[in-house]
Amino acid sequence: MTDPRFDALLAAAPGLRLTTERSDLEHYGCDWTRRWTPAPLAIALPASIGEVQALVRWANEHDIAIVPSGGRTGLSGGAVAANGELVVSLERMNRVLAFDPVDRSLTVQAGIALQAVHDAAREHGLQYPVDFGARGSCTIGGNIATNAGGIRVIRYGNTREWIAGLTVVTGAGDLLELNRGLLKNSSGYDLRHLLIGSEGTLGIVVEATLRLAEPAPPTNVMLLALPSFEGLMQVFAAFRERLQLEAFEFFTDRALRHVLAHGAQAPFDEVHPYYVVAEFAAGDGAHEAAALAAFEHCLDAGLVSDGVISQSDAQAAQLWRLREGITESLARHAPYKNDVSVRVSAMPAFLAEAQALLAREYPQFEVVWFGHIGDGNLHINVLKPEALEAADFVGQCESVTRLLADTLARHGGSISAEHGIGLVKKAYLEGTRSGAEIAIMRGIARVLDPNGIMNPGKLLDR
Amino acid sequence: MTDPRFDALLAAAPGLRLTTERSDLEHYGCDWTRRWTPAPLAIALPASIGEVQALVRWANEHDIAIVPSGGRTGLSGGAVAANGELVVSLERMNRVLAFDPVDRSLTVQAGIALQAVHDAAREHGLQYPVDFGARGSCTIGGNIATNAGGIRVIRYGNTREWIAGLTVVTGAGDLLELNRGLLKNSSGYDLRHLLIGSEGTLGIVVEATLRLAEPAPPTNVMLLALPSFEGLMQVFAAFRERLQLEAFEFFTDRALRHVLAHGAQAPFDEVHPYYVVAEFAAGDGAHEAAALAAFEHCLDAGLVSDGVISQSDAQAAQLWRLREGITESLARHAPYKNDVSVRVSAMPAFLAEAQALLAREYPQFEVVWFGHIGDGNLHINVLKPEALEAADFVGQCESVTRLLADTLARHGGSISAEHGIGLVKKAYLEGTRSGAEIAIMRGIARVLDPNGIMNPGKLLDR
Repeated sequence: MTDPRFDALLAAAPGLRLTTERSDLEHYGCDWTRRWTPAPLAIALPASIGEVQALVRWANEHDIAIVPSGGRTGLSGGAVAANGELVVSLERMNRVLAFDPVDRSLTVQAGIALQAVHDAAREHGLQYPVDFGARGSCTIGGNIATNAGGIRVIRYGNTREWIAGLTVVTGAGDLLELNRGLLKNSSGYDLRHLLIGSEGTLGIVVEATLRLAEPAPPTNVMLLALPSFEGLMQVFAAFRERLQLEAFEFFTDRALRHVLAHGAQAPFDEVHPYYVVAEFAAGDGAHEAAALAAFEHCLDAGLVSDGVISQSDAQAAQLWRLREGITESLARHAPYKNDVSVRVSAMPAFLAEAQALLAREYPQFEVVWFGHIGDGNLHINVLKPEALEAADFVGQCESVTRLLADTLARHGGSISAEHGIGLVKKAYLEGTRSGAEIAIMRGIARVLDPNGIMNPGKLLDR
Repeated sequence: MTDPRFDALLAAAPGLRLTTERSDLEHYGCDWTRRWTPAPLAIALPASIGEVQALVRWANEHDIAIVPSGGRTGLSGGAVAANGELVVSLERMNRVLAFDPVDRSLTVQAGIALQAVHDAAREHGLQYPVDFGARGSCTIGGNIATNAGGIRVIRYGNTREWIAGLTVVTGAGDLLELNRGLLKNSSGYDLRHLLIGSEGTLGIVVEATLRLAEPAPPTNVMLLALPSFEGLMQVFAAFRERLQLEAFEFFTDRALRHVLAHGAQAPFDEVHPYYVVAEFAAGDGAHEAAALAAFEHCLDAGLVSDGVISQSDAQAAQLWRLREGITESLARHAPYKNDVSVRVSAMPAFLAEAQALLAREYPQFEVVWFGHIGDGNLHINVLKPEALEAADFVGQCESVTRLLADTLARHGGSISAEHGIGLVKKAYLEGTRSGAEIAIMRGIARVLDPNGIMNPGKLLDR
């Protein structure tokens, strides 16, 4: 802590907690990607908006890059600090500030964990419906920075849909209170939506007002076994037509094998190549009859070969675990992750091409497919063979990602559905966004972050 | 048509329809506001994206301002051309381009009328749920430019929520295909949302992909008579708690009198000071019982004094006419319009202050209140006394709008809920958006429209 620049910072923000302990630098300098070696300058843990503003102004004066840091559960390197940046962790700004029963809104500090938001909403008889596996660690600020999606997008949309107001410190140190919880506000450019999904490159989200929803209806969970990939979209159509779907998730037998090896219980006696977890509103006989009708229709058409429906909350959780446990079960294989999307209607054609591409290009690797099929979002994880060096493995994967990006471009898809671009997909952004769009993004970044201190190197080169 | 600059334009876009007929200049040069005298340079009626790009490039070369033009039903002067601008009417680009049953989306040219979108969605067994009185004339492009709201926001949100993709020609002449219909796309700044609500200052919307919804459930309409303003939010709470509200609209007896004078039928024998039109999902006994329970609760509490529930679609339409006919019935009084919003929870305190303010400042004028109370959106129309000159009237109103803007700022509200800022509210933008926000908006406008040719003078001075 001998850097003289810190004296100026602590003079501007006397109470600011700042650390350069080696273990802190390592802990706060990386996210769930493991490709980069953490090397931040220091870690700041502000406790107030005033401290965040002070440190952004200081960073501007001293030309120091800032990496905003939430739960660091990201998969794209968006929160990696490998180049002497100041990491700004919001973990001490983690309180619920207000609940309003009339507006049905919850105002929180950005460092609050998603799980704590769920709990606070439930306490008031409502729900915050964005949800995914990292709920215990990820923070609302990080969710907003990546417009996080997850397992209920098919029913409730992405994080974007639930942000009624956003308080942000821009890269220039300005404090913006965006939209202030209004339902209707046609007063110029909606900067709230510009900040959502900007991956920390325009400013630091410090507070948010979240819309809450009516509690979710009672649901049932069904696990379906599919004999082939080709029928997947027809199964989706059959269920969507008859039921209010809350989730519709897909995974392969390879994915299941990893989860089972991790301790989960096999759902069927036989092995099937593909599986779907469907969750749908239930609670009365009509819903269950509709679910059964959808299942029987698919069975008769040869689209599914087996199925099980949850008889209790415990069994529903067990079925969900088969899908939600995948990411964790793959972690020790250092997977190279693709998180791609196309329009749902484009899914069959894209799937066919992508499968052929990966079978041709990755004969030496194990490829695990799963994802939010009802949203057009596929996760494609390539597992690293133990014998292969990490750098070699990533290099081989990246040459294939280039081809996958071309395939996506032809099908009007996106190289990142919900993980964000960060560091890992930056080289492929051009397949998803045109040169003109990227030039405009660059220009906008210069407006909100004129000195280029906000998360430089992520999303775009500026 | 002797202006030599037009030769260059027609050389670049040989088929472009261009007119300088006096009647055309008057017709296309104004919107529903009547404060400005139309004085455009010419009217262009492109039939293709190529023609739009050609004319934007030509306008950049010749430093000519462009006013994008939809149905010109706007109430904020956003489509007024009073300073030698080129009006670009999208009325010839009014086709449905594609429907996709899997994506449940409709791709349209921007000049299509909202009513035609409703019809096309219905043809496919779905609905496009944004709706308001001007549906027959307004266009999707204009709806997007102002993020139009309307009578079903309480249930379905604003236009913003229904735009899956947007094709735009920027002020620099670049063609952007934004989001391309994807449900999940975390690949950098969401420029689609930046364009929505930008009032033609960043570019011209040429095509859009609209999300469609399941058809609306069967509904019932109830008209409630209220003895006082103070109970209004409690009535709203009582109904919202028990029913799935599709609309919850409020108006005063003064508003009703204008609609009745315009030929509508009186709903009650007696006169009541305030009214609510509530529409809610119905179709089974449970819903009707819940509606009755809400009504009886309000009756017992003295919050409502009378009510009527529709017994047929025709009667529902008749009840709706009492609310939807207001704007038209006021038109001949050259009303000065305020379209303000606050958070729903802030409504009671704001209402009390705003009522006191207007009673004090407008003793000489008739003030008509109505609006989308469930969204926190109030329309306040001040009627021009016949004897008063229009300019004097507007001048007197504007000094009060200044005070109203201050009141709104104190309650965290917006000077424009759904009409947009345009020309009429530009002077009051600072009460709703901070100086830092406005500076950022200005910077963003320079990125997308470097020569400042897009709808100059609207929304912001640049």
